[in-house]
Amino acid sequence: MIDFSTDPDHYKHWRLTIDGPVATLALDVREDGGIAPGYDLKLNSYDLGVDIELYDAVQRLRFEHPQVGAVMITSAKERVFCAGANIAMLGQSSHVDKVNFCKFTNETRNGIEDASAHSGQRYLCVINGTAAGGGYELALATDHIILIDDGASAVSLPEVPLLAVLPGTGGLTRVVDKRHVRRDRADFFCTTGEGLRGKRALEWDLIDELAPRSKLDEAAAARAASLAEQTDRPTGAQGISLPPLQRKIGGDEIDYSHVTVTLDRARRIATFQVRGPDAAPPQDAAAIHAQGCDFWPLVLARELDDAILHLRFNEPELGTWVLTTSGDVDLVAAADAALLDNSDDWLVREITLYLKRTLKRLDVSSRSLIALIEPGSCFTGTLLELALAADRSYMLDGAFEGSNAPPASVRPTGMNFGPLPMCNGLTRLETRFLEDSGKTDDIEAEIGKELDAEAAEELGLVTFIPDDIDWEDEVRVALEARAAFSPDALTAMEANLRFAGPETIESKIFARLSAWQNWVFQRPNAVGADGALELYGSGKQPAFDRKRV
Amino acid sequence: MIDFSTDPDHYKHWRLTIDGPVATLALDVREDGGIAPGYDLKLNSYDLGVDIELYDAVQRLRFEHPQVGAVMITSAKERVFCAGANIAMLGQSSHVDKVNFCKFTNETRNGIEDASAHSGQRYLCVINGTAAGGGYELALATDHIILIDDGASAVSLPEVPLLAVLPGTGGLTRVVDKRHVRRDRADFFCTTGEGLRGKRALEWDLIDELAPRSKLDEAAAARAASLAEQTDRPTGAQGISLPPLQRKIGGDEIDYSHVTVTLDRARRIATFQVRGPDAAPPQDAAAIHAQGCDFWPLVLARELDDAILHLRFNEPELGTWVLTTSGDVDLVAAADAALLDNSDDWLVREITLYLKRTLKRLDVSSRSLIALIEPGSCFTGTLLELALAADRSYMLDGAFEGSNAPPASVRPTGMNFGPLPMCNGLTRLETRFLEDSGKTDDIEAEIGKELDAEAAEELGLVTFIPDDIDWEDEVRVALEARAAFSPDALTAMEANLRFAGPETIESKIFARLSAWQNWVFQRPNAVGADGALELYGSGKQPAFDRKRV
Repeated sequence: MIDFSTDPDHYKHWRLTIDGPVATLALDVREDGGIAPGYDLKLNSYDLGVDIELYDAVQRLRFEHPQVGAVMITSAKERVFCAGANIAMLGQSSHVDKVNFCKFTNETRNGIEDASAHSGQRYLCVINGTAAGGGYELALATDHIILIDDGASAVSLPEVPLLAVLPGTGGLTRVVDKRHVRRDRADFFCTTGEGLRGKRALEWDLIDELAPRSKLDEAAAARAASLAEQTDRPTGAQGISLPPLQRKIGGDEIDYSHVTVTLDRARRIATFQVRGPDAAPPQDAAAIHAQGCDFWPLVLARELDDAILHLRFNEPELGTWVLTTSGDVDLVAAADAALLDNSDDWLVREITLYLKRTLKRLDVSSRSLIALIEPGSCFTGTLLELALAADRSYMLDGAFEGSNAPPASVRPTGMNFGPLPMCNGLTRLETRFLEDSGKTDDIEAEIGKELDAEAAEELGLVTFIPDDIDWEDEVRVALEARAAFSPDALTAMEANLRFAGPETIESKIFARLSAWQNWVFQRPNAVGADGALELYGSGKQPAFDRKRV
Repeated sequence: MIDFSTDPDHYKHWRLTIDGPVATLALDVREDGGIAPGYDLKLNSYDLGVDIELYDAVQRLRFEHPQVGAVMITSAKERVFCAGANIAMLGQSSHVDKVNFCKFTNETRNGIEDASAHSGQRYLCVINGTAAGGGYELALATDHIILIDDGASAVSLPEVPLLAVLPGTGGLTRVVDKRHVRRDRADFFCTTGEGLRGKRALEWDLIDELAPRSKLDEAAAARAASLAEQTDRPTGAQGISLPPLQRKIGGDEIDYSHVTVTLDRARRIATFQVRGPDAAPPQDAAAIHAQGCDFWPLVLARELDDAILHLRFNEPELGTWVLTTSGDVDLVAAADAALLDNSDDWLVREITLYLKRTLKRLDVSSRSLIALIEPGSCFTGTLLELALAADRSYMLDGAFEGSNAPPASVRPTGMNFGPLPMCNGLTRLETRFLEDSGKTDDIEAEIGKELDAEAAEELGLVTFIPDDIDWEDEVRVALEARAAFSPDALTAMEANLRFAGPETIESKIFARLSAWQNWVFQRPNAVGADGALELYGSGKQPAFDRKRV
């Protein structure tokens, strides 16, 4: 089982140190510390285990270290920064593992950019040795790249020439779309195994700054200090700690405090039950800080995040995720109001950003998402986003026969109109209605109201509203049909239908770059018995099918 | 050999009729008329041969029929409009053939939209029977879709449920991004094999108009007339005819009047030599009309278009296309000026649009493009776009030793600053420099000037400027390296580096949709021995790997 919980005391591969407003994340990969057997993590190359620690560190820096305004990523090894994803690991991984690994590493790098852009934690990268492939891609996710000018250390993306795969962790996209490296230079760079060093790397905008070995620490410290000065994070505040999640993993159930996932392996369905808060939210920012990691929106983000990752990696055959909710709609609305009313507080901002990233993770999960809105449901505000993230939603019109429960309702809050955008930069409602912004406005006018099935359908919030006579059959047929279709075709279809509207660097990474990488990961030229990934390090030359597709 | 030349007298599958300002393209596929043996084109299903005729018709309508302001696509068969791409044909096609076929059909549908948007030829689709898969996708490419309301005829995208592949000819993208069908409804529609009929299809915006059988012809005629009325095309003008291209195809050479492609199979290189005009252009629009299909820019567009398609389909192992030019730079500049000065003439507009589409075809060709700019080259204006479309360019700095030829130069014209955008909506220069528009302005200030290698490099127009001592080795090494890399990795890399900046429906179709479709086309769930595409029609159920990737 892949487990995403860790903490700095248990890191094998990273050293996190904090010096006032500057944190340093030094990569020092333990060669024999791979998450799976069968390969050595040489030259600071990484696997999923290394990246799980990076993800944990990025999260903790946000919540536990409010005073940190700049984070320096560097290597603790001499003359090597990072050799990228471990090739032997990739070579022995299944297709699903490769794709899952790449998606998670992409999300972590997007999270670094999110911290730089929105959290007041600016990242810089100090490349004190060779940075190849994923090593350079990690640097690309930061705001400022310093390269040692030692006549030897280079930045490179050698995937195409050496491995017949892509730099798949955002490298191609960020080179041309973030750093605006000219496309012909990018072409040369990405086909030159040894990469570029020194002045040329700087002239071509592959890095931001050069420093000789003797001046590297000084240059890095100066830049970190200057980035940290720009932060809007508080200097004297206390962070909140992120203790391990309380989680029970059984054969057919994963149980957290406010999320339970039941696994129906026969029908290939995982059903999320997401529960609203048990009590009214704290009255002000100070009280939210006091509640810390027990504040419901943060509990929600953490538990949902963990559940999504757990299912992605450990339950690949559960192709449909059914999203259900329960709880007191007023308490969810009150929690949303607490987030919105205190949005200028650093911690509240962090919690909202974490909710945003978790919902984005749901959007790019390769599972069919079906929301069921029934009596007792609590699709309010932040939880309504689950229904809007779903590929399809069913809402019971009226009550179940013989039940006293009031009919199902949905209820928009301010959280549906800005703070939780998708990776295309639009809210889920904006994506839903695109240029018809009047429909979004109509829903905004209903903030705070309980909308019954007919109203929700009229407003375009839900897909179908069967009554209690049809409900069971209609839902069952939909879930059975979904489970019968080709998982690949569904993944590809959903990737196309979910992201209408504009594209961003992030959406380009998940669509264009990842889709092509996934294709390459299926091609014999890369993964066949005579493919480049298979033969790397063997001394044998790959035998390529020369047809251009 | 796949040949793209045809004309209405030789169509097997389409009937083109013209009645004043309205043309009708009626699909009447000959079952035994497949371009390859092994399948019957039942139910107006199509293969590449059907689409070659459609492409030809769309082109001829633009050039030969200036008076046509609306084009109606319909079926000549009773109760069936079009069943989409023939499944048996797809099942027996190689991966490269599938991908080439989809790309060409996508380009043809984009061309239909280009005619609607820019040529004053608005397309409408009259669905007089069932429209499934590619049949409905063809309709989606038009401006207005009328569906017969007969209680039986449906529009559908059954690829995911029936075949485990995607609607790959723009369907998914156009449903959500062009027609703005809500994503949850699109999800239902694309997983419902039988599709939607009548009022629900209309309510969900899958079609624009419903008509009972008795009123269908009338409704179609009225809509066509109303669309035709909006045209800005001339009523009394004479079209120009498009006679067959004069082309000699030898073993190692394809020779047109102004384009020669030499094939070096050992090095896997096709070298284009594109020649400028032989004489000054006609002085005004009337003289351009008189010259007709002999006007050099139109010759260029037609010959380059045909050569690109020929190489794509018939020479898949020639992975590198070297782009060279020759001719009189002043004559090319004069031809460009003729296009720009007469841009309000319908024919000149058509020629410019055709150049745009041909260059777009180059952009999405899965071949490495290397431009060589040498003494005697003629990379001026429209021909400079070839160097800007290239993944990389080499320009000789100075002259070759012992040669009297003047040094190479490049020369921008107004054609580089607007009329020839890429599929991302930007010019190649804008894409090259993205947010640094000052660099594009600097080049615009040089319009009409001959820029030598140093100037071209300084302006960012070329990648490398070796002198005559380094030229041969540097070019040779680059071409050899390119030929040695994995063709797949290059295709995927180039697809990511070429299209920085914004995305459009067109770019989304080639990036997101096609990339995912190519992946699906490699997956055993679709194409394996027990895959859905393989088993379709056999009565056997596909056996899917249930892991979600």
